[in-house]
Amino acid sequence: MTTNGFIQKLTEFKEYLKIMKSYEEAVGLIYWDMRTGAPKKGISTRSEVVGVLSGELFKMSVSEKMGEMLAYLTEQDHFSKLDRIEQRIVTESKKDYDRSKRIPPQKYQDYVVLTAQAESAWEDAKHQSDYAMFQPYLEKIVAANLEFIDLWGYEGHKYNTLLDMYEPGMTVAKLDQVFGALREKVVPLLAAIQASPHQPKTDFLKQTFDKEKQKKFSLYILKQMGYDFEAGRLDETVHPFATGLNPGDVRITTRYLLDDVNSALFGTIHEGGHALYEQNISKDLIGTPLCTGTSMGIHESQSRFWENMIGRSRPFWKRYYGDLQNNYSGQFDNVPVEDFYRATNEVKPSLIRIEADELTYNLHIMVRYEIEKELFSETIRVADLPEAWNEKYKDYLGVSPANNGEGVLQDVHWSGGAFGYFPSYALGNMYAAQMMRTIRKELPDFDGLIEGGNLLPIKDWLAEKVYRHGKALTPTEIITSVTGEELNPDYLVQYFNEKYGDIYKL
Amino acid sequence: MTTNGFIQKLTEFKEYLKIMKSYEEAVGLIYWDMRTGAPKKGISTRSEVVGVLSGELFKMSVSEKMGEMLAYLTEQDHFSKLDRIEQRIVTESKKDYDRSKRIPPQKYQDYVVLTAQAESAWEDAKHQSDYAMFQPYLEKIVAANLEFIDLWGYEGHKYNTLLDMYEPGMTVAKLDQVFGALREKVVPLLAAIQASPHQPKTDFLKQTFDKEKQKKFSLYILKQMGYDFEAGRLDETVHPFATGLNPGDVRITTRYLLDDVNSALFGTIHEGGHALYEQNISKDLIGTPLCTGTSMGIHESQSRFWENMIGRSRPFWKRYYGDLQNNYSGQFDNVPVEDFYRATNEVKPSLIRIEADELTYNLHIMVRYEIEKELFSETIRVADLPEAWNEKYKDYLGVSPANNGEGVLQDVHWSGGAFGYFPSYALGNMYAAQMMRTIRKELPDFDGLIEGGNLLPIKDWLAEKVYRHGKALTPTEIITSVTGEELNPDYLVQYFNEKYGDIYKL
Repeated sequence: MTTNGFIQKLTEFKEYLKIMKSYEEAVGLIYWDMRTGAPKKGISTRSEVVGVLSGELFKMSVSEKMGEMLAYLTEQDHFSKLDRIEQRIVTESKKDYDRSKRIPPQKYQDYVVLTAQAESAWEDAKHQSDYAMFQPYLEKIVAANLEFIDLWGYEGHKYNTLLDMYEPGMTVAKLDQVFGALREKVVPLLAAIQASPHQPKTDFLKQTFDKEKQKKFSLYILKQMGYDFEAGRLDETVHPFATGLNPGDVRITTRYLLDDVNSALFGTIHEGGHALYEQNISKDLIGTPLCTGTSMGIHESQSRFWENMIGRSRPFWKRYYGDLQNNYSGQFDNVPVEDFYRATNEVKPSLIRIEADELTYNLHIMVRYEIEKELFSETIRVADLPEAWNEKYKDYLGVSPANNGEGVLQDVHWSGGAFGYFPSYALGNMYAAQMMRTIRKELPDFDGLIEGGNLLPIKDWLAEKVYRHGKALTPTEIITSVTGEELNPDYLVQYFNEKYGDIYKL
Repeated sequence: MTTNGFIQKLTEFKEYLKIMKSYEEAVGLIYWDMRTGAPKKGISTRSEVVGVLSGELFKMSVSEKMGEMLAYLTEQDHFSKLDRIEQRIVTESKKDYDRSKRIPPQKYQDYVVLTAQAESAWEDAKHQSDYAMFQPYLEKIVAANLEFIDLWGYEGHKYNTLLDMYEPGMTVAKLDQVFGALREKVVPLLAAIQASPHQPKTDFLKQTFDKEKQKKFSLYILKQMGYDFEAGRLDETVHPFATGLNPGDVRITTRYLLDDVNSALFGTIHEGGHALYEQNISKDLIGTPLCTGTSMGIHESQSRFWENMIGRSRPFWKRYYGDLQNNYSGQFDNVPVEDFYRATNEVKPSLIRIEADELTYNLHIMVRYEIEKELFSETIRVADLPEAWNEKYKDYLGVSPANNGEGVLQDVHWSGGAFGYFPSYALGNMYAAQMMRTIRKELPDFDGLIEGGNLLPIKDWLAEKVYRHGKALTPTEIITSVTGEELNPDYLVQYFNEKYGDIYKL
């Protein structure tokens, strides 16, 4: 085929992907609307709309035409003519295509129905703390995933194939190493913290806080972070989330708890971190499958970097505590900034992951990781999960759930078949600490910037090193190019030792 | 083909239409979002999403498959086996198909581009009161429509083909008759009103009114009308509108003017009237092309019925004026209900259609109708529109615009090629008055219901007679089945004579 033929094929391929991206964006907006205020009587018809658009998207993703275009563009002669970004687009598309194509359509359909039913069963089961109600669904979901893994293929460990969906390149071998190293240090640190006589006072965090004031302060901090309100908006939902429809429209939501000054604020900063990532993806990537975060772990590193390493830092509160005091006129008059800072960093083993502090959060993840790993090496049965769960919570965190509702049933993930997702949260913490180490070198007055309310250079640094690349670099390429080395859990350990050693005077 | 073959084809056809309706609903939601608060930096990418979905919808509407299905189902043998609703679906779909199919795709594309450019040119032209900036676009749009009319065919008058798009079955002959009869009575009535010494006081309408209070009162009245907030929501936009995404999700918007107590309120009631129509369409019609109002005129009859014949009636204010006084605590203490009622019905010839009162509004429409009719009988040139406009305003309303911005350039419609749309507004007034005449017979205590704040029986009556049918009945079938006769302008004339004879003591 001539060069013209090549260019034509490539253009056609890009147009095709752009159409797929349009469908994705439409579905994304519908979901945002459903969660932020769509009238409930319209939901059943709207769900059919989602079904139609998602169905069309899936059809396009496995179509004969897609197959032909990919076959053409992956031929060595043609592939070598593509630029780096185009090669990434083709490689990513081929990976998605192969993954979708290997599952027989009927099996996939059945699985979609199964997980929809499972989520509803899980809700009831959690509500009634009755694992038996959920167990048969979970058994089928695990079995289906084992079957999918066989169809997809795997290397080393079956679970690797699932991990790769959320964190491309991540393996059990790597996670065993980094989680092992982390746990080895976190568990004794936690014991020392619990034994410390210097526990923070926290009673002042629990007063009644006006919702409008909470909103005003959340918006103020978002602005300080460099969140672009012309490319986004903040709404209210039961479960906070961020959604990047395109880099010019990245919306976040939060939840206001009237008896808690921190929940909405740190929730907003967390989602704001996700949003900064999506708002700053290079415009060149719009309309391609690379116009998104490179992995769940790197995405989570940004939400957690902003939430914990900036938002829960001492320089941050040195700068913004006065503003908070003014915002809640009178309610913090007798609370010194140091007390507030220590309170927002209280460490306390608990049963519920989403309420966990920055330190113990990782242990919650490790419990789930160990269980998922065993499910897919088939060394544990679904029936035995509650027992395994409770043992590991006792072992890692020293706490025992009173029932399965606050134990093994607490998270929605498994009902949707999202195995391999949990590790991203802890990976995010490790990536974030590792990146901070580099930022501190490259922006030597890092603490000074924060204390001066000068957060934009930090955002710009991250945009340059991480955000703008979207999925054009792999997670490994990102962490290596930013920090000069692969994922290394030591930086998170060091960060914890320094921060909590200071707070708890260890 | 066997009965099974017939049923299979019919099912396939219905599924196909349902998918088209899903695309429409997705596009509708995107437009709603764009107008209510989508971040501006995301709009250009979002517009491409709209392009993709609308393009797909158009492709489906003129596809070979659509052609085949319609050919099959319109065959006498098959058509006769359809039930009444199915026949309407096929007939409507065939009409749309033929209309779209007759325009060569390239011509249609060019026209879409032309009107997009024209709208933007119109905005500038209006802003600068410079007709010459808009004239070349309008010339092309009129020429394109004349060409389309030739392709579509016409009976009697070319303009009939355009009228039929908004008001199926409406003709120049009919409009000449009803508008003639109306104008003959309205013009002298207007003269008498202007000569009356009993002009209402209106100064108290112009105070400063708190936005939250306006919103609260608007929501209260919507609830009284029977607007279902589980199937809708009220938002704020520059230009108020109603959009029926599906009968379970019919959203309305309004605009709050801080110096005007009535603007947001009557705007909300107006859009609420449109919304009641869409919320009460029978669930059986969901997913079909009949799940919408039957015509622009009938739709407008409902917004105007609620806005003017209920909302601007004396019994309405006898019931709700106390609530309004409480809502704006103190601001209406010295204004008797009768003064408020008369003020909300002030008649005053003006230049701007959208600010016109109920009576003179129809004259604004007739100006536009006469001009459009002449454009498509080619008895006037686009270049001569400003002059014709100004003459007719002088003639019908006795006012003269100071410039083309408040004259011929005031409305957006022509820039989008929406010729034939304007008459709907006046038709709505006539339909509404005609229906009220019947309601008064069938619900003899009509005024008592309103004065008792008992609006739901009125809504239920309209739902039963009009709303539930959606587009399953034609506008003529609706007005005939509801009132026992075809469109008759006398009822609007009677209503005006009684109402304004009383208010202005004629």
